[in-house]
Amino acid sequence: MTKHSKGKSSTKRYWMYGYHPVRAAILNPKRTIHRLLLTQNAAHKLTRDIGPIDHYMPEIKSSKYIAELFAADTTHQGFALQLAPLEEKGIDGLSQIVDPKAPLVLLDQVTDPQNVGAILRSVDAFYGKAIITTIRNSPSESGVLAKASSGAIERVPFIKVANLNGAMSKLKEMGYWFIGLEPEGTIELESALEQTADAQIGMVMGAEGKGLRESVRKQCDYLAHITINPSTNSLNVSTATSVSLYSAFRIRSAAKTRTELG
Amino acid sequence: MTKHSKGKSSTKRYWMYGYHPVRAAILNPKRTIHRLLLTQNAAHKLTRDIGPIDHYMPEIKSSKYIAELFAADTTHQGFALQLAPLEEKGIDGLSQIVDPKAPLVLLDQVTDPQNVGAILRSVDAFYGKAIITTIRNSPSESGVLAKASSGAIERVPFIKVANLNGAMSKLKEMGYWFIGLEPEGTIELESALEQTADAQIGMVMGAEGKGLRESVRKQCDYLAHITINPSTNSLNVSTATSVSLYSAFRIRSAAKTRTELG
Repeated sequence: MTKHSKGKSSTKRYWMYGYHPVRAAILNPKRTIHRLLLTQNAAHKLTRDIGPIDHYMPEIKSSKYIAELFAADTTHQGFALQLAPLEEKGIDGLSQIVDPKAPLVLLDQVTDPQNVGAILRSVDAFYGKAIITTIRNSPSESGVLAKASSGAIERVPFIKVANLNGAMSKLKEMGYWFIGLEPEGTIELESALEQTADAQIGMVMGAEGKGLRESVRKQCDYLAHITINPSTNSLNVSTATSVSLYSAFRIRSAAKTRTELG
Repeated sequence: MTKHSKGKSSTKRYWMYGYHPVRAAILNPKRTIHRLLLTQNAAHKLTRDIGPIDHYMPEIKSSKYIAELFAADTTHQGFALQLAPLEEKGIDGLSQIVDPKAPLVLLDQVTDPQNVGAILRSVDAFYGKAIITTIRNSPSESGVLAKASSGAIERVPFIKVANLNGAMSKLKEMGYWFIGLEPEGTIELESALEQTADAQIGMVMGAEGKGLRESVRKQCDYLAHITINPSTNSLNVSTATSVSLYSAFRIRSAAKTRTELG
């Protein structure tokens, strides 16, 4: 085994690390798993947690051996899993998702895997539907992305499209409304969410500093801002997404209760 | 100059990096600044942004020179500043803070500087008052902390106490109510915030996984949870803090409007 293995099939394989990501991946029936390396302690922890693990054919290794697979200071926690990325999905699959009113998150050139991983985690926590991003200028599935997502990559559809504009046009035909977030947005986020509380929505997020591309802005039905202290720089994109999804969940739950009562 | 300089005064000095943190620090009159290293491009950017910078005596260096001060992959952006940490404040200074109704954030053994930096940034953005944490088991002021805070370390009081329990007792005497956040909290966060909307409050956050220490839990008037999808692991502490502060700001603004109208 080498750090940079070569060959046709292995070019798509990667190493995932950390307790939550590895646990979630081995429990995901859609995963093709190649190797599972565990420290003795990690094997005990996993067995206590999910029952017998022999059928995953774990290889018990030292913490140092596992550490050498990764960059320095990687918090592997004794868990390393070599696996293939999940099959990529298109937007056609969205209609099969159970809750049509759960918000989509669209990412316009958000490239940092730490941020995208944290956003996957927020989409999972705050009842979002899926992430849609572009094939270019977005991170590939990787150990860093999986770790930052804390296993949410196994549960949240991560859809990549060639052209975000084209996908937005198609989704509009399916009935979606789009709320683009930017510091200079003309409407407060809560107002935009109140006005779309009964619709299918997508929240459109750009990278901090760069914001949304003009062509993407033009596709948005609302350009909304999150009210923050004016002495602050803009919010980190993952913080902005967490707050937006949390607000959407609160407002849409309240609207649903009103509909059910009325 | 060496990476690990020795000597009495320099033991407290550290190197800060990145555009936002360095810009905020040199504009903070409370800072003692030792050296400012900039690339030619960074010097131009800073001059365009804040006017003449000659009185900071910048040293123009190559990007490679600056990179060698830091760990590999540090995104210094051409900005490095050697400076002394801010003077540490006690909780006695809290009464001087303008808005007595802005929430405090108390951190119980949150040790990761990335998380604490992101929390500083959220406190700044969402109108929090200050962070109170312990002298032990919390990160020192550092380049990593300052970068993650994106300059908020210059604006948000970062108070360290010997004993969090003792500080909470003192703050209770000053009229504070405490909301401790934990996944098994008995009340929803919003309910706890509604019930304390006219009071001075502190939100008490523990590290993910470890949670609040028993002695700290006992000091809380409410133990509250953020409603999340049950298939998700707990929230990252900085995401939980952002959402809590944002909710507090919304609920307390609404309560204030009601009081003013009524």
